[in-house]
Amino acid sequence: MSVDTLRLVVSSPDRPGIIAAVARFLHERGASIVELDQYTSEPGGGQFYLRTEFTIAPARRAGLAGEFATAIGEPFGMHWRFTDARQVKRIAILASRADHCLVDLLWRWRRGELAADITLVASNHPVLRDTVTGFGVPFHEVPVRHGARDAAEGTLADLLAGQCDLIVLARYMQILSGGFLEKVGVPVINIHHSFLPAFPGAGPYERARQRGVKLIGATAHYVTAALDEGPIIEQDVIRTSHRDTTATLVRLGADVERTVLARAVAWHCADRLLQYDNRVLVF
Amino acid sequence: MSVDTLRLVVSSPDRPGIIAAVARFLHERGASIVELDQYTSEPGGGQFYLRTEFTIAPARRAGLAGEFATAIGEPFGMHWRFTDARQVKRIAILASRADHCLVDLLWRWRRGELAADITLVASNHPVLRDTVTGFGVPFHEVPVRHGARDAAEGTLADLLAGQCDLIVLARYMQILSGGFLEKVGVPVINIHHSFLPAFPGAGPYERARQRGVKLIGATAHYVTAALDEGPIIEQDVIRTSHRDTTATLVRLGADVERTVLARAVAWHCADRLLQYDNRVLVF
Amino acid sequence: MSVDTLRLVVSSPDRPGIIAAVARFLHERGASIVELDQYTSEPGGGQFYLRTEFTIAPARRAGLAGEFATAIGEPFGMHWRFTDARQVKRIAILASRADHCLVDLLWRWRRGELAADITLVASNHPVLRDTVTGFGVPFHEVPVRHGARDAAEGTLADLLAGQCDLIVLARYMQILSGGFLEKVGVPVINIHHSFLPAFPGAGPYERARQRGVKLIGATAHYVTAALDEGPIIEQDVIRTSHRDTTATLVRLGADVERTVLARAVAWHCADRLLQYDNRVLVF
Amino acid sequence: MSVDTLRLVVSSPDRPGIIAAVARFLHERGASIVELDQYTSEPGGGQFYLRTEFTIAPARRAGLAGEFATAIGEPFGMHWRFTDARQVKRIAILASRADHCLVDLLWRWRRGELAADITLVASNHPVLRDTVTGFGVPFHEVPVRHGARDAAEGTLADLLAGQCDLIVLARYMQILSGGFLEKVGVPVINIHHSFLPAFPGAGPYERARQRGVKLIGATAHYVTAALDEGPIIEQDVIRTSHRDTTATLVRLGADVERTVLARAVAWHCADRLLQYDNRVLVF
Repeated sequence: MSVDTLRLVVSSPDRPGIIAAVARFLHERGASIVELDQYTSEPGGGQFYLRTEFTIAPARRAGLAGEFATAIGEPFGMHWRFTDARQVKRIAILASRADHCLVDLLWRWRRGELAADITLVASNHPVLRDTVTGFGVPFHEVPVRHGARDAAEGTLADLLAGQCDLIVLARYMQILSGGFLEKVGVPVINIHHSFLPAFPGAGPYERARQRGVKLIGATAHYVTAALDEGPIIEQDVIRTSHRDTTATLVRLGADVERTVLARAVAWHCADRLLQYDNRVLVF
Repeated sequence: MSVDTLRLVVSSPDRPGIIAAVARFLHERGASIVELDQYTSEPGGGQFYLRTEFTIAPARRAGLAGEFATAIGEPFGMHWRFTDARQVKRIAILASRADHCLVDLLWRWRRGELAADITLVASNHPVLRDTVTGFGVPFHEVPVRHGARDAAEGTLADLLAGQCDLIVLARYMQILSGGFLEKVGVPVINIHHSFLPAFPGAGPYERARQRGVKLIGATAHYVTAALDEGPIIEQDVIRTSHRDTTATLVRLGADVERTVLARAVAWHCADRLLQYDNRVLVF
Repeated sequence: MSVDTLRLVVSSPDRPGIIAAVARFLHERGASIVELDQYTSEPGGGQFYLRTEFTIAPARRAGLAGEFATAIGEPFGMHWRFTDARQVKRIAILASRADHCLVDLLWRWRRGELAADITLVASNHPVLRDTVTGFGVPFHEVPVRHGARDAAEGTLADLLAGQCDLIVLARYMQILSGGFLEKVGVPVINIHHSFLPAFPGAGPYERARQRGVKLIGATAHYVTAALDEGPIIEQDVIRTSHRDTTATLVRLGADVERTVLARAVAWHCADRLLQYDNRVLVF
Repeated sequence: MSVDTLRLVVSSPDRPGIIAAVARFLHERGASIVELDQYTSEPGGGQFYLRTEFTIAPARRAGLAGEFATAIGEPFGMHWRFTDARQVKRIAILASRADHCLVDLLWRWRRGELAADITLVASNHPVLRDTVTGFGVPFHEVPVRHGARDAAEGTLADLLAGQCDLIVLARYMQILSGGFLEKVGVPVINIHHSFLPAFPGAGPYERARQRGVKLIGATAHYVTAALDEGPIIEQDVIRTSHRDTTATLVRLGADVERTVLARAVAWHCADRLLQYDNRVLVF
């Protein structure tokens, strides 16, 4: 008998009995829980978060979401969403000249490691065209001319409209306006080449070298209107020494950047990320 | 209103509805789930494991365990146990001459970091007596004379009888017999100074150097009658280079050993470890 | 004034004055030492190893190697070699079906990160042909039929003869005979998907899962006739948990494998690796 | 024949022939180089740094330093110093209430792992007295009353005068004035409980939690008059998750702090640290 795999993600004011209510609801509809994770920001009075993955017979899915709303979601005052593991998210990638994060995502996607569809790549430079089309993905050049960011953002927004559920900035070296973020209306993940909040802004490797830090790193975060201050999804670091030039740091850092970004994107696509204040819960 | 914090740990053949049944049972008795983690070895037919930590009013505790047995545990064919977070485990430590793992545990215990009582330390050498008594812990010398392991194990077993819920081998350099393990009847955690299964047995640092490995490590595991083959609880490694002598490896390794052992002991004391075949689940 | 960058790598019985003699020799010929590293296996009587990178005016290079032999190399009983940083090594890669290590090397080579030329890729399967030719590198299919390893090795050896200074096994799933290694006469680097000496041989991820280890890893080593026992160049590990299936371990491990192999190949190409007994010094 | 182990540390404008000159000088005086490491900030025109450890017969030591000055140090315009590995540095430790860094240093010193003498511990609180005296080390309470930092610093400076070659701040929670640093005239190493330059100042764990970082860390640095901006000696990080409370971060961080501080102190005591601008070279 074939089964569907669904996910339910819940955020709610903490109250006794939430897990019991959710688990019972699923059990009574013949669903079988594969995974369930939960977190309470403050035991007995904070915010409650839950993610569960369950299998269910296709015939039992009809009306599931509506019944949940009536029986559980609304009475408990929850935010919630159901997703279907088979309906993978559509990703649009923005890049500039550097190819490491972009190629890494394309390659993981091609080998079936990324449960997502990469629907298009857009760049403010033409240099990555062949690389992208070689993977069978459409490439769009959207130049950003000096003093004409608004026009470029307008072109980009039109291009992306309805084409993606997630935008990934794979070392896209342009700052996106709050207006653009609002207009595209889907989550945006960026990779920053430092272990934020250290070295926000430009040139982090050069500044890391000048400050003499012994670790360099990378940070994947959701993009908000406040530059480099969005909620952090994932971070990692690598050891460095006084022998490493800035060029070496750039090269070493590239390996960390692509790994960290790939993890963040994979978690997002598996509905494992929940935002809580300016933080991200990884379930 | 004061509340008690209890833990419930469950192992069971996987069946639909276990989480719903457990969560409902707790909710109906006024318990509030603080943490709940679960694992199924094989979705839809394997072994099911669950750990939950919950608070409950003292007045509602009476009969809880008995009711659980009747309503949930027996019908589902579970193994289960309730523990009270306040009833900390009593630890007996066995050591030889090396002090690093022993001192680290004693120090963590003194600063309140280890939710446990260290009730006694026994050693086959007298050298650590002052160190141990300086922490206010009784020290017992139980020499192991050549060809007289059985007698020493008998003395040890008498000493430990009823005094501890966990035995920790903090670099105790004697092999314990299956008969001893059976007689003491409590779990035994050992720290091995290599990243098992590499370099089982004696002299791992010397052999690591000869083999030219680039990482050395340590492994905390439950002790079984099969030497160095018990279920692994925790492991970690540290980078090494050709410049490190065996003496340097011993020194570097000591830091990994004490960290790994401390984590394993803390997890055991928080009822976070479940055995599944020859593996350990860390919840 | 343009300068050439050369490297000198020395192995010698330890004797007083080697560094002084080498440094003086270079200084008197107008060379400028950029980097110098040295190691003695046992102070005052072991084996001495030295690697130095220096710049020198092209006009002063004539006769350098010959003068070194007469003045230093032979009197001290050294093994030594000079290399020119600009004469990059030619690499032939052998692969099977898995593309992760192969693509990673090709991509690093294309972006100029690998100071080497990838001259050809050979595989016992046709599946990676398009991937390889997409990078502009010749691809050769050399099938290995059951019971006909010798014939396949003969074909391979003919293909490789004079075409490469280094062979890299990028998850090539065939065992190479001692005879083949001798015939090709260049160093061979392999990536093994475990932290050797744990889990030598086949299926390490499956066995890692069964043994319940908390870390999985990869090992790059020089290939010798003794399977998985050649000198270790580099290793790294990644944390795993009971939740990871064997398929997940394979995927996580792939990231470690490609990083570890890339480091090993880069070090070899920069003449940073010296063999000492069955160990590798990384300078 | 017994030998002495000496170290020579050199900083100099980069010029051709420095290594040759130093190595030849040592060789001609019968010294045998055990280790030699060198770094040039910019090949062919930057600053040159060298550290070498060598053995020499006691009879050949007379006049060594003076001859070096005349023959090498002054002609090359160097800063240099010779140290004797047997003349270990005297360390004074300042602490407040937290014991983890302090106990770790005392314990490493007692087991002979730290090539140094711990001559005294001073604290602005009395609570660590028994801990310190239990290791046989003098303890001095030097309270810092509100508005009377100058007086306290005066007392401290008198206490330390001539008693130490290095001051270690093992979580000493008072800011030291530039005047004090000048008066004591020896290097001061501090451990900061964040991966600087992220979260300088007070309360880094609380701020790390609020910012939602996925790694917490610690930084050992030389103290300068600019708070938390002195040259970084060593750093490390540990992974954290949304489940960790600030209290958990403090506990996890303590393990990183003590490890990082111990490494920094050990390197300083082995004369492995050289300052270059606001950076530290680790040889």
